[in-house]
Amino acid sequence: MSEPELRPKAEKLDATDELAGMRAQFVLDDAVYLDGNSLGALPRSVPGRVEDVVRRQWGSLRIRSWDESGWWTAPERIGDRIAPLVGAAPGQIVVGDSTSVNVFKAVVGAVRLAAEKEDGSAGESGRDEILVDATTFPTDGYIAASAARLTGCTLRPVTPDEVPGALSERTAAVLLNHVDYRTGRLHDLPSLTAAIHAAGAVAIWDLCHSAGALPVGLDEHGVDLAVGCTYKYLNGGPGSPAYLYVREDLQPRFDSPLPGWNSHADPFGMTPDYTPAPGALRGRVGTPDILSMLALEAALEVWDDVSIEAVRTKSLALTDFFLECVEAYVPEGTVESLTPPAHAQRGSQVALRCPDAGNVMRRLIDRGVIGDFREPDVLRFGFTPLYVGFGDVERAARVLGEMF
Amino acid sequence: MSEPELRPKAEKLDATDELAGMRAQFVLDDAVYLDGNSLGALPRSVPGRVEDVVRRQWGSLRIRSWDESGWWTAPERIGDRIAPLVGAAPGQIVVGDSTSVNVFKAVVGAVRLAAEKEDGSAGESGRDEILVDATTFPTDGYIAASAARLTGCTLRPVTPDEVPGALSERTAAVLLNHVDYRTGRLHDLPSLTAAIHAAGAVAIWDLCHSAGALPVGLDEHGVDLAVGCTYKYLNGGPGSPAYLYVREDLQPRFDSPLPGWNSHADPFGMTPDYTPAPGALRGRVGTPDILSMLALEAALEVWDDVSIEAVRTKSLALTDFFLECVEAYVPEGTVESLTPPAHAQRGSQVALRCPDAGNVMRRLIDRGVIGDFREPDVLRFGFTPLYVGFGDVERAARVLGEMF
Repeated sequence: MSEPELRPKAEKLDATDELAGMRAQFVLDDAVYLDGNSLGALPRSVPGRVEDVVRRQWGSLRIRSWDESGWWTAPERIGDRIAPLVGAAPGQIVVGDSTSVNVFKAVVGAVRLAAEKEDGSAGESGRDEILVDATTFPTDGYIAASAARLTGCTLRPVTPDEVPGALSERTAAVLLNHVDYRTGRLHDLPSLTAAIHAAGAVAIWDLCHSAGALPVGLDEHGVDLAVGCTYKYLNGGPGSPAYLYVREDLQPRFDSPLPGWNSHADPFGMTPDYTPAPGALRGRVGTPDILSMLALEAALEVWDDVSIEAVRTKSLALTDFFLECVEAYVPEGTVESLTPPAHAQRGSQVALRCPDAGNVMRRLIDRGVIGDFREPDVLRFGFTPLYVGFGDVERAARVLGEMF
Repeated sequence: MSEPELRPKAEKLDATDELAGMRAQFVLDDAVYLDGNSLGALPRSVPGRVEDVVRRQWGSLRIRSWDESGWWTAPERIGDRIAPLVGAAPGQIVVGDSTSVNVFKAVVGAVRLAAEKEDGSAGESGRDEILVDATTFPTDGYIAASAARLTGCTLRPVTPDEVPGALSERTAAVLLNHVDYRTGRLHDLPSLTAAIHAAGAVAIWDLCHSAGALPVGLDEHGVDLAVGCTYKYLNGGPGSPAYLYVREDLQPRFDSPLPGWNSHADPFGMTPDYTPAPGALRGRVGTPDILSMLALEAALEVWDDVSIEAVRTKSLALTDFFLECVEAYVPEGTVESLTPPAHAQRGSQVALRCPDAGNVMRRLIDRGVIGDFREPDVLRFGFTPLYVGFGDVERAARVLGEMF
């Protein structure tokens, strides 16, 4: 197809898009924003809420807000708001800290679960190996290495495809990404989780690039632990707090390496001895950063009437259409897609390799098509179904074609 | 003295208070707010800044703000803003994460510094004991216990007075509070740090209850590592990010247990191998929570023309005057001060024991005197010199006297 055909096709797809109305809930301009997989756009519900948190809750009520404005219970309340988006029943997710810090809690916690030894050292259990996605966003690997060092384990980087063959009775835990941050490849969470469990190990999934873009099914697939950020497809704002999922039946044995006072069974008892709170709360650490956290809570309201299945359907239609438009507009042989063509292996982004990708992205941004560049030669385009339309997709591909 | 004498005395003290004008920089009401040692009042500079961060920096500039709005460098830039308040030269403090998470970085980092062994285990160095303030705010003790467990150390709780006698060639690190959260007692940072160093151990100070209330002198006294929160006397807002100080000469050897991608020498290289950044940056972990962090940055502007020495002078005058008024207004034998009378041992709060303290505090709050209650029998009154006046102090003591 060519422009005279693709533009009407985009219009038609937009006209029948059941999520088209969601765009009005975000602050957007004339640019095509395809970087929601890095920083989600601002939901219109956020500025007023933040102003209320600052001026009234902090400025006027001050410390009373810990009770009266629900500050103290925000981590678990907002966790329950994220839960349906990742297929989790309530009571299993707490929000707080960065993704890196939550990866640390999860990996050390997983080694301890695998070892089932009270002192938490892995040596005597025989499970002293942590497998980590070799293609992961680097922080997961760095933090997993630290967790391995502190728990006496060995860290072994493997690709997700290699995991089934690498599992053994030595495996304590496996840390994988649901969607690869660079290529946009979606990994097979159900079958990898089953393989990890068959080997007697603990499965940890990083959902940063999948939560809010596609169904995750944490409970359904028996995932043990999961972490994720909230500033990509969940639109929580720059550096908004991450979250930790601990499956309900594992919670009594979850033994956090960061047992801050917020995770104590009686935090205001201020006793010198530590007794962990029941439930997901034991994933909490210190005082939650209320401004960022309540901005996230407001941002999550946009999901009230949206099903994640509808989001997934549109996401695949957007990436399919983008690949179709790229094929039509971009000279053959100029770019190469790193994103798998099969729907079952595709997240909500398209990664294209091309020569001089850094400069190409700068020129795209100048032309109002906002994606990002990842070393050494990758153009990343994220498609947020809540606010990206098919007309945007056609325009982005068309402008990309004009770069060459 | 009695009321006819104390009220004019308060007026006279207010009239000559060189910090009296600072109060106008905060949002306050008719209450006497003596809980700034829990949550500082809202600085007037904050709401407009937060609105700009949300609407323009996030809403409009979006990802461009990581560069253009200085988001990426905020942790070290804001650290440098805190530095003069705690007596640190620039380049030694990064802001981010909660106090608990920073305590973890500091204690594990300290054990590794003490051991000077690349694998970070303390066993072979012979330094396998961590001393922790037995009267500490509980989270420090809980986190120190976790750090001890993960590094193969023993945790030994001692009172600060007992530290000199407890130090030995086995001591790896000592974690102390500058000011006790409950009693308001100020500990002798210079001499305790010197004693810790004489024993060859690493000194970590928790500044939560001293930073912004009195001079700390981190560089002057050769403190190794320090942590602190920013929502008390620094008025950063509920759960605003904490900070970590690593003395400059120790930075090349500081080995964080939370080596997230933000602490990498080349974070956007996204290499699988971890190379720590030089300087204080290696105390960073994950993506900083920008909303909370930039609210803090605005809050710190109130310090531009204030010397911490002037703050200390006023703080002691406020607590002296409060104790004087309490003696005058409160029936003898009803309350007992836990706060040392000697200036050298006093922070910026007064803690009074009294029967039925929980109820007394509720009634005080109903009467517009806001302090807080700490189990089992402590009334805590914090005196923030930037916005508490002598008239407030007289009124608080007078209302307290009417409770009995």
